[in-house]
Amino acid sequence: MNAPKANAVVGQSGGPTAVINESLVGVIEEANKHPQIENLYGAVHAVAGIVKDDFIDLKKLSAKELEKVAASPCSALGSSRDKPDDEYRAKILEVFKKRNIRYFFYIGGNDSANTAHIINSMAAKSGYELRAFHIPKTVDNDLLVTDHCPGYGSAARFVASALISDDLDNRALPGIKIDVIMGRHAGFLTAASVLGKQRDDDGPHLVYVPERGISLDKFISDIEEVYKKLGRCVVAVSEGICDADGVIWAEKLAKESETDAHGNIQLSGTGALADFLAAQVKATLKVKRVRADTFGYLQRSFAGLQSDVDAREARWCGRHAVQYAMEQASGSVAIKRLASGTDYKIEIFRTELKNVAEKTKSMPEEFINAEGNGITDAFVEYAMPLTGGLPKTCYLGNYPRA
Amino acid sequence: MNAPKANAVVGQSGGPTAVINESLVGVIEEANKHPQIENLYGAVHAVAGIVKDDFIDLKKLSAKELEKVAASPCSALGSSRDKPDDEYRAKILEVFKKRNIRYFFYIGGNDSANTAHIINSMAAKSGYELRAFHIPKTVDNDLLVTDHCPGYGSAARFVASALISDDLDNRALPGIKIDVIMGRHAGFLTAASVLGKQRDDDGPHLVYVPERGISLDKFISDIEEVYKKLGRCVVAVSEGICDADGVIWAEKLAKESETDAHGNIQLSGTGALADFLAAQVKATLKVKRVRADTFGYLQRSFAGLQSDVDAREARWCGRHAVQYAMEQASGSVAIKRLASGTDYKIEIFRTELKNVAEKTKSMPEEFINAEGNGITDAFVEYAMPLTGGLPKTCYLGNYPRA
Repeated sequence: MNAPKANAVVGQSGGPTAVINESLVGVIEEANKHPQIENLYGAVHAVAGIVKDDFIDLKKLSAKELEKVAASPCSALGSSRDKPDDEYRAKILEVFKKRNIRYFFYIGGNDSANTAHIINSMAAKSGYELRAFHIPKTVDNDLLVTDHCPGYGSAARFVASALISDDLDNRALPGIKIDVIMGRHAGFLTAASVLGKQRDDDGPHLVYVPERGISLDKFISDIEEVYKKLGRCVVAVSEGICDADGVIWAEKLAKESETDAHGNIQLSGTGALADFLAAQVKATLKVKRVRADTFGYLQRSFAGLQSDVDAREARWCGRHAVQYAMEQASGSVAIKRLASGTDYKIEIFRTELKNVAEKTKSMPEEFINAEGNGITDAFVEYAMPLTGGLPKTCYLGNYPRA
Repeated sequence: MNAPKANAVVGQSGGPTAVINESLVGVIEEANKHPQIENLYGAVHAVAGIVKDDFIDLKKLSAKELEKVAASPCSALGSSRDKPDDEYRAKILEVFKKRNIRYFFYIGGNDSANTAHIINSMAAKSGYELRAFHIPKTVDNDLLVTDHCPGYGSAARFVASALISDDLDNRALPGIKIDVIMGRHAGFLTAASVLGKQRDDDGPHLVYVPERGISLDKFISDIEEVYKKLGRCVVAVSEGICDADGVIWAEKLAKESETDAHGNIQLSGTGALADFLAAQVKATLKVKRVRADTFGYLQRSFAGLQSDVDAREARWCGRHAVQYAMEQASGSVAIKRLASGTDYKIEIFRTELKNVAEKTKSMPEEFINAEGNGITDAFVEYAMPLTGGLPKTCYLGNYPRA
């Protein structure tokens, strides 16, 4: 199937990551190599920019500018949380036709894959040749098919680094510390809290992910047990932590729940869950020093803390999307792991949009311990290479006494 | 005055920083050079370790171990928030006498300088020769005499980096974002939120520090003004922000206020202020997307994000304390700025303990704008060199349209 000589558009959707611009630059670099792509338009604020015909000419950027874009965190084109309905999609197709856009590259999560999928089907039905490709991006790491998602490694690096410091802080000034980490349904990012552990008694000592329900009583008695043993306790909790009945704790707490256009309840951007947990633990265990932090938006896209592995893979995914578009009508870019550990190696492959659209992935059973309050070595082996390596530390308080 | 041949002790007090271990290693390195210092004991958990006679032999550490300690965030010896009373201090002196400790190096804030000062006076009164030195450390940057404090530059680097990302995040998905940053009485760390600004419309667009009272009405109308102009607004707020009457907002909010042994109310480790501000702004301005993050403990000691300038100076301060102790009976180590900007240069000097003990410094008037809602270029000139440099970014949404 010959690739048409026409224009292309690329957009970035959903929550920003530390390497989403690497994928964008991958698309631009590769598009520059293919004469079939005449103009490459950047959609400002994703689908919202497409319907408003709001585009930037990305072929004009110099190689130097491209590297600056790639190194920048967050979505350089702006993003959107709009979920296009039929009318919205018809408008998108209209703009595509008007601008002779026949290539659509969309960087985002499963909602974005779905948008690409539906628009592609609409174009096919109306007899308009369009090649739609989804490029994976999410700090939640919850997309199907792919081994892992660009964006996750850098966020995992942030979370692991934060816990390295937080555990040392908790050693220095002992008490109970609770960290609330992003992850509505998938615990991958919260699980990353364990990646920096070096010593047997390093925290986090307890980790709770949304895949396992946990009662408040069990949560508090787990903490009590660690605190009695170590005189301190560091706990990592997903924002999507569920009660034993499967209801999200934060939802129980929310007086007025705010939902976005995709029906997702807002869990980030509020410290309510962390404060609730700290208050419950403090009241029950009568420990003076109980603290809680909510990592909030810091964790998803922190300047200067990108994982180089994540950055490189994000760029590859962008490049491959364009390569696939020269041969195929649609697809989602995915990562296959060829080897783990120090030999860590991946390859990129193409899967169908429908395989990635809408659905999400949770942590496999083997990554969570039997008691549902910790993370296994299998997870560490899986996630460690994605962080690009973590700092090693030294704590003297464990040394022999003089 | 000849330096006695005797033992020395070093301790780390108060909240950890990203470079407090650099100062510790500076003390160890320099002590290793002076035969007058026979044993160098590390007090585990600061004064609490001294009274329990809980020490580590720091002369046993290899050069390789020392570099690993120096690169680690947080207090490698452990810390304490105990505020010694007369009985406690008498106990400290008793242990010093028992162990023939005649050098006391204490790394910490103004409370630590005060502890060193009082113990030194007690020793003098009892005719026991003791040389007590304070080594400055605080992320608040609120010590008197010194130009700035080791620990501040790295925390400032974290806060500035966080705001670089947060502003780009807010561009990508516009709305109102409020970030609550450490600083009970001094606004230096919150002011650092502006250091990464590159473009005219970069956030934070509003900055509130404890040095200036601000009413909730003014706070909200300031935000409204920016939001009307830019369609978005990023706000940096000190945890110690005061109402126009000088009362700290967080105190007004606190149902049950928790105080530490120094009489300081706990402002960190809770998201209540951020959530309160977001709720007020949202209710008044009827903007859907209002978010708030509390940076919490992450900002004070983040692994892998130290400022190299800050690290180097922290080490120098530790070394100088030992050098001064060879010549003088007591003192606090301080930094004098010789040149700013690209020629940034400092020298270390000694000041009296009493000059640093107890009192704290606030932001000078010239660092805060007339309206009390922004930070001046004079501050940027002051603080920028301390961060060790910040990442530059690129936002394409400002580029000309295709």
